[in-house]
Amino acid sequence: MTNPNSQPAHEGSEPGSLLVVGSVALDHVRTPAGVADESLGGAATFFSVAATILHRPVYLVGVVGEDFPEEVIEMLSGRGIDCSGLDRREGRTFRWKGYYEGDMNEAVTEETHLNVFGDFVPNLSSKFRQADYVFLANIDPTLQLKVLDQIEKPRIVGADTMNFWIQSKTDELREVISRVDLMVLNDAEAILLTGETNLVRAAEKVLEMGPDIVAVKKGAHGALVLGRDDRVLVPAVPLSEIVDPTGAGDSFAGGMMASLANQNAELGNFDALRTAVGYGSVIASFNCESFSIERLKELQVPMIEERLQALRNYSTF
Amino acid sequence: MTNPNSQPAHEGSEPGSLLVVGSVALDHVRTPAGVADESLGGAATFFSVAATILHRPVYLVGVVGEDFPEEVIEMLSGRGIDCSGLDRREGRTFRWKGYYEGDMNEAVTEETHLNVFGDFVPNLSSKFRQADYVFLANIDPTLQLKVLDQIEKPRIVGADTMNFWIQSKTDELREVISRVDLMVLNDAEAILLTGETNLVRAAEKVLEMGPDIVAVKKGAHGALVLGRDDRVLVPAVPLSEIVDPTGAGDSFAGGMMASLANQNAELGNFDALRTAVGYGSVIASFNCESFSIERLKELQVPMIEERLQALRNYSTF
Repeated sequence: MTNPNSQPAHEGSEPGSLLVVGSVALDHVRTPAGVADESLGGAATFFSVAATILHRPVYLVGVVGEDFPEEVIEMLSGRGIDCSGLDRREGRTFRWKGYYEGDMNEAVTEETHLNVFGDFVPNLSSKFRQADYVFLANIDPTLQLKVLDQIEKPRIVGADTMNFWIQSKTDELREVISRVDLMVLNDAEAILLTGETNLVRAAEKVLEMGPDIVAVKKGAHGALVLGRDDRVLVPAVPLSEIVDPTGAGDSFAGGMMASLANQNAELGNFDALRTAVGYGSVIASFNCESFSIERLKELQVPMIEERLQALRNYSTF
Repeated sequence: MTNPNSQPAHEGSEPGSLLVVGSVALDHVRTPAGVADESLGGAATFFSVAATILHRPVYLVGVVGEDFPEEVIEMLSGRGIDCSGLDRREGRTFRWKGYYEGDMNEAVTEETHLNVFGDFVPNLSSKFRQADYVFLANIDPTLQLKVLDQIEKPRIVGADTMNFWIQSKTDELREVISRVDLMVLNDAEAILLTGETNLVRAAEKVLEMGPDIVAVKKGAHGALVLGRDDRVLVPAVPLSEIVDPTGAGDSFAGGMMASLANQNAELGNFDALRTAVGYGSVIASFNCESFSIERLKELQVPMIEERLQALRNYSTF
C-alpha cells in the first residue's frame, strides 16, 4: 500500500481544469444552532467554494435571478471561481427552505422554489467545454445529459443526484449514471436507487450501472467509496458541534474533485482517489461548522492539512 | 504515530488473564436471511467465543438452566473457555426473541425471559478474582457492581449495558460507569444515557462520568473510541451480506479485550487500544456472517489478520 502522503502531488506537469454545473441558491435553514435566512447556498456554490481552497480556478455554470447580490458574485470571483458561466436571468434566484433536527444527518425540505432554474439550459463556453475534471452537481438529469453532450475531453466526470430525480426521472438519471466515471450519492439515495438496504451491495449495484467509482456519503459516518478492485472507507471528522450540515456533501465532492484535479489524476489511480476522499471529508467537516459558506471562506490549506493528518491518526488501528 | 503493526505484541512477559461476566442464552432470531431457534446466544457467550480466537483461556461467569445442552458447555470448554464459573441452576435458561429488518442495524426485541438469570448472583472463585482484564457484559448493573466488589487487581475493566438498564437502574449504572476504565455502549444507548444527539459530545459526556475510555459502537458504521487525549475511529468491515448481527457488539468487545490481554496492555497505552479495536471490528464482522456463533467457531487467527490488513488498507487515505 502506497502511503498517499508520500506520493507526488501531481502526475502530470500541471493541475487539470475543473468545472462544476449546478445550483446557486438562497437558502432558509433552521438547525438546533440557529436560523439563517437568504443565506448563500446551492450545490454548485458549496462545491466551488470548497474546491477553490485547494484548486483555482473552478469554472462555475449555473443561473441566478435579478435578486442575487452582485457582491456575492464578486466575492466568488475574488476567490478564484470563474463566474463567466453564471447566467443572470429575469426572475428570482432558486430558493430552498429546510431544517435539521436530532442527529442532523438528514435535511427536511419545507419549500423548494426553482424560480430561474426552472427553464435553465446549460450552454458551455468553448473554454469550459475543454475542462479536464467535470462535476455535475445535483440538478435535473436532463440538464446533466446536456452538459455531458458538450464536454469534449474530460478526464474524470463525477455526478451527484437526489431522491426527487431518482423517483421522477429514473431513465434520464440512469443514462447519466451510465455515462459518468464517479457517481456520488448519499446512503438514502443509494438505497432508493437500487432497492438494496445493504449499503455495500447498493454501492455495488450502482457500479454495475456503469461508473468506475461510487462514493456513498453517510453524513456523520463518513463515506464508503468503491472502485472496481479497491475500496476506501473515509470517516467523517468527529465534530462535537455541528452548526449546519447543508452543503457538506457538495463540499465533500468539491474537495475530492479539486484534489483529483490537483493531482492531474487518471481514473484508474486509486491512490489518488484515496487522497482525494480524505480532503473531501476534511473540507466537508469544516463546512458543518457554520451556516452557508462562512467557515469554508476562511479556510487555508494548512488548516486542511492539519485536520487531515488528525483524521489519518484517528484511522490508525 | 506508531504503526500498531510494528509494536511488540506483548508489553510484559506473558498475556494477562481475561474474565467475562454476563448472559448465556438460547435465542430465537429472525433476520432477512432466515430464522434460528433455540440458538446459542447471550453476551458472555459471544464475548468469550470471540475472545478465545485470540486469547485462551477466557474465564466465563454466568448461569444456565437445566435445559441447557451439556454438549454446548463441552464445546465452549473445548475451545479454551473456563466454564467453572458457569452455574447450572434449576429452571430454564435465559431466552431472548427478536428480529432485524431493513439495514439490520438495530434489533427489535419481542420477548425476554430472564428465567434462571432472574435471581443470579455472581460469586467469583479466588482464581477468577485475580483476573487482569475483566469485562462486565450487559447485565443488571447491580450484578456488575457485585463483580466490581470481588475483583482484586484488575488492570483494565470494561463494561457494556443496554437501554433497559439506562432507564430502569440509572443510579446503579452510573456507579458502574464511574468505577470502570472502559465503557462500551452503542450509539442509541450513548444518546439515551447522556441526552446528547451528537455522538462525539455523547461520548465526551460518558468520559466525564469516570471511565478513561469510551467506545461507542455504531453497527455497520464502525466504532468511535475516545480516550482522554486521543481517539480512534474504526470502520466496520464492509459486508455485502449480513446474516445475523446478534452478538456483533459482544464480539467486538471480546476481540478488543482479548487483544488488550494479549498485549498485556496498561490502560494508558492508546496504541495498544488502537490495535485492539481493529481486532474487535474484524471479529465482529465475521460474527455477522452467520447465526449464533457458527462463523466465530471456525475462525483462525490468519483469517482475522488478513481481514484486519484489508480494513487497514481501506482506511488509507
